[in-house]
Amino acid sequence: MLKDYIDLEYKPTKQDFVCEYHIEPAQGVGFEDACTHMAGESSIDTWSDISTLSPQLAKELKPHVIFTDEKQQTVRVAYTQDLFELNSVPQILSAIAGNIFSMSILDNLRLMDITFPEDVIQSFHGPKFGMQGVKDLLGVTDRPLVGTIVKPKVGLTSEQHAEVAYNAFAGGCDLVKDDENLTDQKFNRFQSRAELTLKGSEKAEAETGERKMYMCNITAPTCEEMLKRAGIIKDLGGEYAMIDIITVGWSALQSLRDHNEDLNLVLHAHRCMHSALTRNPRHGVSMLVIAKLIRLIGLDQLHIGTVVGKMHGERDEVLALKDECVLKNVPANHDLHMLEQDWGRIRPMFPVASGGLEPTMVPELTKIFGKDAIMQFGGGIHAHPMGTVAGAAACRQAVDASLDGISLEEYAKTHNELKAALDKWG
Amino acid sequence: MLKDYIDLEYKPTKQDFVCEYHIEPAQGVGFEDACTHMAGESSIDTWSDISTLSPQLAKELKPHVIFTDEKQQTVRVAYTQDLFELNSVPQILSAIAGNIFSMSILDNLRLMDITFPEDVIQSFHGPKFGMQGVKDLLGVTDRPLVGTIVKPKVGLTSEQHAEVAYNAFAGGCDLVKDDENLTDQKFNRFQSRAELTLKGSEKAEAETGERKMYMCNITAPTCEEMLKRAGIIKDLGGEYAMIDIITVGWSALQSLRDHNEDLNLVLHAHRCMHSALTRNPRHGVSMLVIAKLIRLIGLDQLHIGTVVGKMHGERDEVLALKDECVLKNVPANHDLHMLEQDWGRIRPMFPVASGGLEPTMVPELTKIFGKDAIMQFGGGIHAHPMGTVAGAAACRQAVDASLDGISLEEYAKTHNELKAALDKWG
Repeated sequence: MLKDYIDLEYKPTKQDFVCEYHIEPAQGVGFEDACTHMAGESSIDTWSDISTLSPQLAKELKPHVIFTDEKQQTVRVAYTQDLFELNSVPQILSAIAGNIFSMSILDNLRLMDITFPEDVIQSFHGPKFGMQGVKDLLGVTDRPLVGTIVKPKVGLTSEQHAEVAYNAFAGGCDLVKDDENLTDQKFNRFQSRAELTLKGSEKAEAETGERKMYMCNITAPTCEEMLKRAGIIKDLGGEYAMIDIITVGWSALQSLRDHNEDLNLVLHAHRCMHSALTRNPRHGVSMLVIAKLIRLIGLDQLHIGTVVGKMHGERDEVLALKDECVLKNVPANHDLHMLEQDWGRIRPMFPVASGGLEPTMVPELTKIFGKDAIMQFGGGIHAHPMGTVAGAAACRQAVDASLDGISLEEYAKTHNELKAALDKWG
Repeated sequence: MLKDYIDLEYKPTKQDFVCEYHIEPAQGVGFEDACTHMAGESSIDTWSDISTLSPQLAKELKPHVIFTDEKQQTVRVAYTQDLFELNSVPQILSAIAGNIFSMSILDNLRLMDITFPEDVIQSFHGPKFGMQGVKDLLGVTDRPLVGTIVKPKVGLTSEQHAEVAYNAFAGGCDLVKDDENLTDQKFNRFQSRAELTLKGSEKAEAETGERKMYMCNITAPTCEEMLKRAGIIKDLGGEYAMIDIITVGWSALQSLRDHNEDLNLVLHAHRCMHSALTRNPRHGVSMLVIAKLIRLIGLDQLHIGTVVGKMHGERDEVLALKDECVLKNVPANHDLHMLEQDWGRIRPMFPVASGGLEPTMVPELTKIFGKDAIMQFGGGIHAHPMGTVAGAAACRQAVDASLDGISLEEYAKTHNELKAALDKWG
């Protein structure tokens, strides 16, 4: 039968894409039927036997359903890479994460992971700096990096914004970033914010003797405007930019990374809106897939959750994301629906813990992430009872204490800023 | 209390964004608390009272929760437009559809609709051609347009692709489009496909005396490549392009529309992957919101579902989408979570019915859409027992019969192609 793509004996080659899906057939639809039709719709088929599909073509390009587990509602499909435009995230998603979410024979479908073939790994840049490059740039290798987000999210003038950033740098932050919804509003224009805040980071560098990096948000309506804003940062001597990866979209990110060969900026990925796609465990796309696409394209650091903060995120999932960011060879973990991935020459991407963090969470965060993380505190710095400078200091103190294996309570006896933080949040 | 944004007396102004959400607080979280925190996170707040937020600023920029219905799990929030970069879909989404989907105090959240303020409507192009422009270009105003998708989705050579397209045109299709996952693969390069298929459409025009339009898929890894492909179409004399709106992403679409002032192509929006965001009725973003963003940016035609085909989609939702595509003033319909929208000078966008259609569905489709639709048949043409030419003819016959109020069975007595279609699908 033409439409039976179930082939459990098929061994995927290094030229195949392998995808794992959670799949729930609609009532009355058989599990294997659902798997075979989903595999077809994501490759060469339509819903009907068509006159224009030759048997030869069907044989060469057909998908192979290589694993089915009806009880676990899991299916794995191997696709020949000939089906794809190898360096195009939009095309890859349009195929294996496109129409299939709409199929009326399915009640739910979730793309859990993709193993990318060698040729795809070769087709993408990967991070320009990556985790080690960022550590080198900042000259910090013996501790996690401490960052903040200027708060409130929007509403400060450029001058006020720069002052908050300067205070955070002065107190001990390595990194200060804009929030996701601050771009170029009438009360805080991109150009003036970038100028003033970069001056603040230079001043703090001179005063503290530490490198200080400001991540200005280059999220923009068009690619041209995004690249213009990135160019402004470069012209001002900035070394970092942040971008809202989901809301600008995949073609913009690939454009940005291409241009970053010349721009030479560290690129920070903010994932806001991802949960519209990723949060339902039975439908959509996993955060793991998004993280892999971002590493493939080549942003340098990515929000992956905190386990302990204000945002949804299970411990196991966050640890899996961390592994996928940093390892060269990621092993399969079928309990977590993770497939193996050989990242080849693609550099590790720096994992960022952000979302509702405050200093009392640092010991637990350090256990989870070790030194290979950027810890970002927003309200956890600016809501400190003694203000932003002290808030930043308290976070650095909490990091120092945790790395030295000293309890925060003990360390707070000789560190007032940490003590005030514990009084508030402890 | 600073964080109480509930203000049911507040009347939104024409400078406000108004958003309706479906909202489900996590266990133990009060409904009004959830609403107020969600409104804060999507505007000026973080999770903690912060020192850098002045009372003055809080007052000027605070969101207003203007409607809550705990039983219906519905909330409406008015946001001052000062919070936004008015012409930036990425920034708008990062604010009102960003972090809030991740909040651990919520189990589910769905953005149902947005009323865009006047200044936003003024900031965007809207469709360059729009529904009437497309009808004028094709010279067809007295019937729905009939289109097809070349099938199989991928796998044909450029020559084979052009032949299938020519056959569809010759049989009666007005429009032929690529499928969503066909872009620039090694067996069918973009340039050769565009050249050969446009030649096929010219040949069919000469033979039939009807205008014939080919929609080549310009979905590409980068914005630059997307624009390059659009330029190739223009240089070849093409008048149409299609693009996968969700997988290229918002910044690419806004770039494309900016450049379309010069390119002058009719832009067809394929929505594959939308269901990863839109299908769960309790979480994510509604298709209505996506349709509004696409009309705002200014693509000319958009897939909105069929009611009757292979893809999921309720009748009421499809009709609501149709209204949002074509009306100048859309009234509120609270049963469907639709807010009012004045589209001002923004042109109507042509609704496209596509996904599992075949000729027997045409009478029902005509009842639903009238003449203001593009009906796209994929397998419903190429799986016709007599092949693609006859399949296209059968669809045109079905349209003619439906408009004349003649039953397909009656019409088939004198139309062999339709008869064969009814024998197969009837």
